Amino acid sequence: MKKTEFDLLALGEILLRLSPPDNERIMRGDVFQKQVGGAELNVVSGVSLLGLRSGIISRIPDSSIGTYAKNKIRFSGVSDDYLVYDSGRDARLGVYYYENGAYPRKPGIVYDRQHSSMTRVSADEFTEEIYSASRCFHTSGITLALSESCRQTGIEMIKRFKEQGTCISFDVNFRGNLWTGEEARECIEGILPYVDIFFCSEDTARLTFGKEGNVKDIMKSFAKDYPLSVIASTQRTVHSPKVHSFTSVIYDVKEDCYYEEKPYQNIEVVDRIGSGDAYVSGVLYGLLSEDGDCKKALKYGNASSAVKNTIPGDMPSLTRSEIQDIIADHENTGYHSEMKR
Amino acid sequence: MKKTEFDLLALGEILLRLSPPDNERIMRGDVFQKQVGGAELNVVSGVSLLGLRSGIISRIPDSSIGTYAKNKIRFSGVSDDYLVYDSGRDARLGVYYYENGAYPRKPGIVYDRQHSSMTRVSADEFTEEIYSASRCFHTSGITLALSESCRQTGIEMIKRFKEQGTCISFDVNFRGNLWTGEEARECIEGILPYVDIFFCSEDTARLTFGKEGNVKDIMKSFAKDYPLSVIASTQRTVHSPKVHSFTSVIYDVKEDCYYEEKPYQNIEVVDRIGSGDAYVSGVLYGLLSEDGDCKKALKYGNASSAVKNTIPGDMPSLTRSEIQDIIADHENTGYHSEMKR
Amino acid sequence: MKKTEFDLLALGEILLRLSPPDNERIMRGDVFQKQVGGAELNVVSGVSLLGLRSGIISRIPDSSIGTYAKNKIRFSGVSDDYLVYDSGRDARLGVYYYENGAYPRKPGIVYDRQHSSMTRVSADEFTEEIYSASRCFHTSGITLALSESCRQTGIEMIKRFKEQGTCISFDVNFRGNLWTGEEARECIEGILPYVDIFFCSEDTARLTFGKEGNVKDIMKSFAKDYPLSVIASTQRTVHSPKVHSFTSVIYDVKEDCYYEEKPYQNIEVVDRIGSGDAYVSGVLYGLLSEDGDCKKALKYGNASSAVKNTIPGDMPSLTRSEIQDIIADHENTGYHSEMKR
Amino acid sequence: MKKTEFDLLALGEILLRLSPPDNERIMRGDVFQKQVGGAELNVVSGVSLLGLRSGIISRIPDSSIGTYAKNKIRFSGVSDDYLVYDSGRDARLGVYYYENGAYPRKPGIVYDRQHSSMTRVSADEFTEEIYSASRCFHTSGITLALSESCRQTGIEMIKRFKEQGTCISFDVNFRGNLWTGEEARECIEGILPYVDIFFCSEDTARLTFGKEGNVKDIMKSFAKDYPLSVIASTQRTVHSPKVHSFTSVIYDVKEDCYYEEKPYQNIEVVDRIGSGDAYVSGVLYGLLSEDGDCKKALKYGNASSAVKNTIPGDMPSLTRSEIQDIIADHENTGYHSEMKR
Amino acid sequence: MKKTEFDLLALGEILLRLSPPDNERIMRGDVFQKQVGGAELNVVSGVSLLGLRSGIISRIPDSSIGTYAKNKIRFSGVSDDYLVYDSGRDARLGVYYYENGAYPRKPGIVYDRQHSSMTRVSADEFTEEIYSASRCFHTSGITLALSESCRQTGIEMIKRFKEQGTCISFDVNFRGNLWTGEEARECIEGILPYVDIFFCSEDTARLTFGKEGNVKDIMKSFAKDYPLSVIASTQRTVHSPKVHSFTSVIYDVKEDCYYEEKPYQNIEVVDRIGSGDAYVSGVLYGLLSEDGDCKKALKYGNASSAVKNTIPGDMPSLTRSEIQDIIADHENTGYHSEMKR
Amino acid sequence: MKKTEFDLLALGEILLRLSPPDNERIMRGDVFQKQVGGAELNVVSGVSLLGLRSGIISRIPDSSIGTYAKNKIRFSGVSDDYLVYDSGRDARLGVYYYENGAYPRKPGIVYDRQHSSMTRVSADEFTEEIYSASRCFHTSGITLALSESCRQTGIEMIKRFKEQGTCISFDVNFRGNLWTGEEARECIEGILPYVDIFFCSEDTARLTFGKEGNVKDIMKSFAKDYPLSVIASTQRTVHSPKVHSFTSVIYDVKEDCYYEEKPYQNIEVVDRIGSGDAYVSGVLYGLLSEDGDCKKALKYGNASSAVKNTIPGDMPSLTRSEIQDIIADHENTGYHSEMKR
Repeated sequence: MKKTEFDLLALGEILLRLSPPDNERIMRGDVFQKQVGGAELNVVSGVSLLGLRSGIISRIPDSSIGTYAKNKIRFSGVSDDYLVYDSGRDARLGVYYYENGAYPRKPGIVYDRQHSSMTRVSADEFTEEIYSASRCFHTSGITLALSESCRQTGIEMIKRFKEQGTCISFDVNFRGNLWTGEEARECIEGILPYVDIFFCSEDTARLTFGKEGNVKDIMKSFAKDYPLSVIASTQRTVHSPKVHSFTSVIYDVKEDCYYEEKPYQNIEVVDRIGSGDAYVSGVLYGLLSEDGDCKKALKYGNASSAVKNTIPGDMPSLTRSEIQDIIADHENTGYHSEMKR
Repeated sequence: MKKTEFDLLALGEILLRLSPPDNERIMRGDVFQKQVGGAELNVVSGVSLLGLRSGIISRIPDSSIGTYAKNKIRFSGVSDDYLVYDSGRDARLGVYYYENGAYPRKPGIVYDRQHSSMTRVSADEFTEEIYSASRCFHTSGITLALSESCRQTGIEMIKRFKEQGTCISFDVNFRGNLWTGEEARECIEGILPYVDIFFCSEDTARLTFGKEGNVKDIMKSFAKDYPLSVIASTQRTVHSPKVHSFTSVIYDVKEDCYYEEKPYQNIEVVDRIGSGDAYVSGVLYGLLSEDGDCKKALKYGNASSAVKNTIPGDMPSLTRSEIQDIIADHENTGYHSEMKR
Repeated sequence: MKKTEFDLLALGEILLRLSPPDNERIMRGDVFQKQVGGAELNVVSGVSLLGLRSGIISRIPDSSIGTYAKNKIRFSGVSDDYLVYDSGRDARLGVYYYENGAYPRKPGIVYDRQHSSMTRVSADEFTEEIYSASRCFHTSGITLALSESCRQTGIEMIKRFKEQGTCISFDVNFRGNLWTGEEARECIEGILPYVDIFFCSEDTARLTFGKEGNVKDIMKSFAKDYPLSVIASTQRTVHSPKVHSFTSVIYDVKEDCYYEEKPYQNIEVVDRIGSGDAYVSGVLYGLLSEDGDCKKALKYGNASSAVKNTIPGDMPSLTRSEIQDIIADHENTGYHSEMKR
Repeated sequence: MKKTEFDLLALGEILLRLSPPDNERIMRGDVFQKQVGGAELNVVSGVSLLGLRSGIISRIPDSSIGTYAKNKIRFSGVSDDYLVYDSGRDARLGVYYYENGAYPRKPGIVYDRQHSSMTRVSADEFTEEIYSASRCFHTSGITLALSESCRQTGIEMIKRFKEQGTCISFDVNFRGNLWTGEEARECIEGILPYVDIFFCSEDTARLTFGKEGNVKDIMKSFAKDYPLSVIASTQRTVHSPKVHSFTSVIYDVKEDCYYEEKPYQNIEVVDRIGSGDAYVSGVLYGLLSEDGDCKKALKYGNASSAVKNTIPGDMPSLTRSEIQDIIADHENTGYHSEMKR
Repeated sequence: MKKTEFDLLALGEILLRLSPPDNERIMRGDVFQKQVGGAELNVVSGVSLLGLRSGIISRIPDSSIGTYAKNKIRFSGVSDDYLVYDSGRDARLGVYYYENGAYPRKPGIVYDRQHSSMTRVSADEFTEEIYSASRCFHTSGITLALSESCRQTGIEMIKRFKEQGTCISFDVNFRGNLWTGEEARECIEGILPYVDIFFCSEDTARLTFGKEGNVKDIMKSFAKDYPLSVIASTQRTVHSPKVHSFTSVIYDVKEDCYYEEKPYQNIEVVDRIGSGDAYVSGVLYGLLSEDGDCKKALKYGNASSAVKNTIPGDMPSLTRSEIQDIIADHENTGYHSEMKR
Repeated sequence: MKKTEFDLLALGEILLRLSPPDNERIMRGDVFQKQVGGAELNVVSGVSLLGLRSGIISRIPDSSIGTYAKNKIRFSGVSDDYLVYDSGRDARLGVYYYENGAYPRKPGIVYDRQHSSMTRVSADEFTEEIYSASRCFHTSGITLALSESCRQTGIEMIKRFKEQGTCISFDVNFRGNLWTGEEARECIEGILPYVDIFFCSEDTARLTFGKEGNVKDIMKSFAKDYPLSVIASTQRTVHSPKVHSFTSVIYDVKEDCYYEEKPYQNIEVVDRIGSGDAYVSGVLYGLLSEDGDCKKALKYGNASSAVKNTIPGDMPSLTRSEIQDIIADHENTGYHSEMKR
């Protein structure tokens, strides 16, 4: 692949996440844990932790809260070179409130992200050189759904990065509270001709894109319609808010080959938010570091997602060697050490 | 039913609860979580959260600690109209220390509730109008066992509320550290002629009231001896301090009909205290809001209790719509969303 | 005065306040203290703590965050009868971030209150009976500045409460980040004909209303132009973020008499926010409980404000007897006990 | 002096202290700091930190809370050999709630110490050998005021320790909420014939014992009436809850000599509780370690008290070398290092 | 057995343990929990909690951190009589950083214990009388592996305690990061002739000592080679970082009898560190308090270890009566109470 | 000046700082605040916050603790390009424990920094290109004193950066616990011929370098002996641990001109550590951004230092615009706003 400053750049909103500690409820208590997240930020952060160079493209307020977000982004190993600062009187960072669940109580989210600085982003705020700065560009359906400005910026960036030969990664990440299935389908079908790596859950494929058959049929159907290289779909089983199992299927279109592995069973879930994004980060790491090796991508994706569930906050927090140990343990059928000393 | 200011008033002691965080022990550590609870307060709080108007009848010290208790009661949606303040030199709020368990260590409680302001309560401290202020009056065996003054006040209030046509609810809630089984039986048999809604666990029915047969036999036997309308009995299975299952049986005496449903299995227990009281609150809500519909009462009771286990502190913290979602999920055999967004 | 359910009702926005602990900065750290405030809420809360019956008129989201706000309002002794709930997709509670200062670093605030549910409030959401429910109605320039809807609602309520014979209290509380001095002047001059109790700082009187002379001249000038009964103006000296001095002047128009007292010197400031509102609450308490006695109002106002500075959060937290002790100590020139045992 | 296992034993109640963090109020907030204190415990703890061997004689519940107290006592360097455990159903550790002040708000205390296990202490619970185990025995007026049992135990122990040649130390520590001045005077006059080292504030000497003249006249008057060896009186100036100055006067009866030094000016008070007890501990340390040297006692007493004000909780927390550095700094008029590295 | 001041003395390093709260990672977050631990300290602390008299022999810095360690040791009921203080410029307390795991993420430890004050310990720093002060002396392979000085001190103490008729307990506790298996084997074989009570895991026996056959064969083989009285081996099954099962086998050499019991199944693991040491403490308590009764030792050992997993920190925190209740519950097949009230 | 990637690179050790919260003592309490600091890191962090590009040259362990340090460095806006990772078995991050003071108790520090990974740093670990990567290079006497390797690396870097035309900044920062005055003098005299910007306190100049006369005489004397461009000396007055005043003198050698301004009086000290480093950062920012303007350097230096005292931790946390506001307020003699809204 071509030589660039970054391995991955992503366009997405950065949110302030506020969550009561442990099992406390949003409607009570005296403190909030203060964190930063966002679907695409979570992805680039995961990729950086694994050792690649990544950056986030976003728009945040020029205030203490914006500075907090910027600092946390840097803390997470992500470049802040492409942050644009909003000094307007209505500048704001979107907020969401999250509380953990415990069976039979589900986790809960209250969004307060409308009118954020990001919703007024424009491709004009970024210089030309951005389009040749990275090997891969990633965004998700959330960005496309946030506002008209976001949608136009996202679509324009996809096209212009593509023009420069950048690999395009896209995660459908359908959210019914941001747009309808119909809006999503129409918009995404418009960008799929530019996409190389495509993340879509089985449920969304059926409900939003009207796909039928099993997950492999669905993947093949997408590959027939669009010039995709890799299609990935997660498979999560939610036993309870504190216990999940997780695996995925990846379809290598060129090789016409499906990759699967046994699930991570009974994951001890601490914080489920961002585990889908961690999956994307692991897959992209595998593909970008191993020259498109889908088997590696599967292993890194599954391990990254599984382990993200054990880490508080949206963003992952693991080194490559930790992920590699987890992969080795998952494949190992013999003696397991109990602890890392 | 008649038109009143409150749907439910309850007589009971309010306690300061002090608990070390997480799995820390009472005998160590530098902080206590500070909460307020009490069997009857927990009940009225649950009923208010579900949307009815409730109040607590109690006696608390006229001090900062009393003010704290009053404020928390209001925070929980309960009226403080019937709190009486004790300005005596020996005024005190009862305290209990609670620590969580983890198998094989059980949860532990140290009580320090003797000589509290509540133990010197008297019916004379409340004006006549209280007896016509509510559709339902509730108290429990704990109140009757606290002191001679409490017992007399409890019995007098039961009788006087009943005279005004108020529905009487009573939860045996036997506590071996407050009185003997024999004392309890004798006292409670004296009030059962006035009770409409009766909560009694199977164990207590056997050990204290000498009942025999299965739970339905026991219920029928109570109904034969006393003019009860509804009898409810919880069925909890303690797999470990952090995992319980829960359901209950309700007997509609007039209809001679038993209501049951499948248990909430493997509840992820965060704080078990008050889950029995939450059950009572759900049942009373069901009966009071749905005109005595025992099936609804069963569903609300089981869901309220199951979910209370997931919430720190004595008092529940849920809205009616959350409880309704949990009931719907419990009955639903199809697709379950993972999260409330 | 006439017999009503409430002594004081106020119209105003309720904000979620998020602040890093102690001297930590917004741009760092892992937790926010979570509190609720708002100029008018602070006023009614102070009045309730002193023993009168008060309520807040506001519009909040129908979400966990809205429930949190409602519960805190009740905790603070304020009625939630006149809260209106916003179930719209764009419902939100305004947020502000606050950090303490320490010389030479000033306290800092970042506002994120635009587009809140309150900004879409309408007088139509409240029933007719509200206008005869209170002895006094209070609002501030902040409410008038928040949005067009807020302004219209504020003005309409002032007029309609006045029609019912309710005493009208108004605090200019000028905020340059919400409107210009010119806008403020024009709007406020329109409502002054309806106002009985008027709070205006000396600085604002000069800069916004173009008043001249000393503070007493200014007060007399306002009294000449409008049918005001009482005019109050605070006098704060900021020695450093942690040390203030405070007193005020009150002008009793009918008696043509000014009330003053020696300042509270070198107040040990813990949290300065809301101390102006606490002043208003003390003055209103004094006037409403003592039949318009401006001398009492002055004492309660100054003491309430001085002591609010020592309490974390926007809202005061004191009993009437504590305020009375502080007043007594302030006037006492002899032996002072060191502690309240 | 004679050879014994301990340098100091003291009889006194041990209390659980619960305090909101920082400037939070008892009537709000979600946590209490959890500490252990008690006038005599504070004294022996200070003496142990300075390097002597001390123990506390007390009665505590045989529960987790009692174990917590015992562990904290050991943590503070004090022997638990003479703790007696109460397994009765009404066993309890006295509690007190404390909140910090900030001008114009005073610190506040709510006591809940009635009916504690200590109030039922009896000299019979301790074996004979205790009376020959220590060089010095200390108790205070608080112990004598707690209950009839405490008073009898205190008086008996004073007499029996004295019989064994033990030096007797007594701190009047008058508390108007425990007994009247008249009761105190009568009781204390009964034990003064046995006392060697006597701590009495100037105010108490005047109000309770009817003494007149300046502090030196008062001391001389006590020495005339009773066979005291050393009389000490603290002189505290409370500029505000966060700023005090402190010094004291000690009268060496045999030498007929008064010792004084310039005050510690403008102490930055973090927690004032126990600073009087720390004074006693410093004086006793000085006398016991330096063979009755009142000048040393004065220095250690003043420094211990001054510095206790800077330490959270009742009990001091300093090493002897730290106290010695503070004394040296206090006397030093030249260069002061800023920090201990 | 002979009459001594202590039942158990142990030689071992004391470490400062720093751990992020809950599931937070070492590489993030703003606070560390601050605790004290160490294999041998954990053992003596457990023995003291069960009611025997124990002390730790160690070398710690003469600094605030050393004082902290000393105070915590006393808090835990352990004597600090045999602590030696290091005032050298390079004095330091070893540190280790620990984070909890959650499947698939393992717990992690980072050690920073080199060059600690303990590594320079010498037997010469302790007076002769130590060797006759205890009924039993314990140390572990960790101490022997820390440094050459530690090894020599450990070996010399084993021999000199043995000379005085003290029972010698030794736990292999092999740590591959401190020495090689070969070094360990050679060193330990040199001391086994002096050991009475020997703790060795099955894995270590195989890998380090080259033993073969099942666990009972291994034990018999050790007993054949060395004059051991009791051999104990734990059997832990790690289902996940939060779920373990635990039991053990004890071999009574003289009786040629093996003791076993059903495992504690599905222990709810809060903090696994120190559970092996808690096992040793339970076994030693059983043997020392019950005159060498291996059956009792097994029960106390298994219960102590199982329950340690539920307690944060290295050191156990339980009373004897709690352990006895857990043993009773483990053996009980009938009704189990849910809570300790 | 020449065009480079960085404005400032600095060589220095990175330390983990552990401090009890508020006024708690190291020898007590259950938590440590976890921070990262180091004299040179503090300087580059301050320079980055003000808007220049800076990086730290250091050696840290390849472990979770090293990763924590790296992340915090990035959080603070500093480049981690020149961090070298130590994977050796004895890799460690130096630690220091810090506690706040309150008069009469001084702040206290316990160092545990020996044998750290940094003490084994070598210039060979950095590539040649580093020497042309920055406009300015900074280090301090602390680095020279840490170890022989550190000293050689420091001296070599000073010389090689100088060869490339880089401006050399040096802060004496004498620490008597790291080396003697004689060692310091001899070593520093060897590097002064290469230094452009020189920071030296008046005390150190006198005691270590034997300078005489007033501060201006001293500065002139240094300028006579060595080819320095700028000499700066801070002037701090410690009224108490919580109240300092601060200003400084800067000597512009070429212009032969001294710059001074009135002190920041009665700074409300929250955390004094790093305020000297913040001064250096302000001065370097002034000189580097304003082309050597010593007057600007003085203003930025004094303001940065004064305000650092109000911020917890070693590193500053302010934006350029905040510093500019503080400078403007310091110079302003008219109306001061109380708060930044």
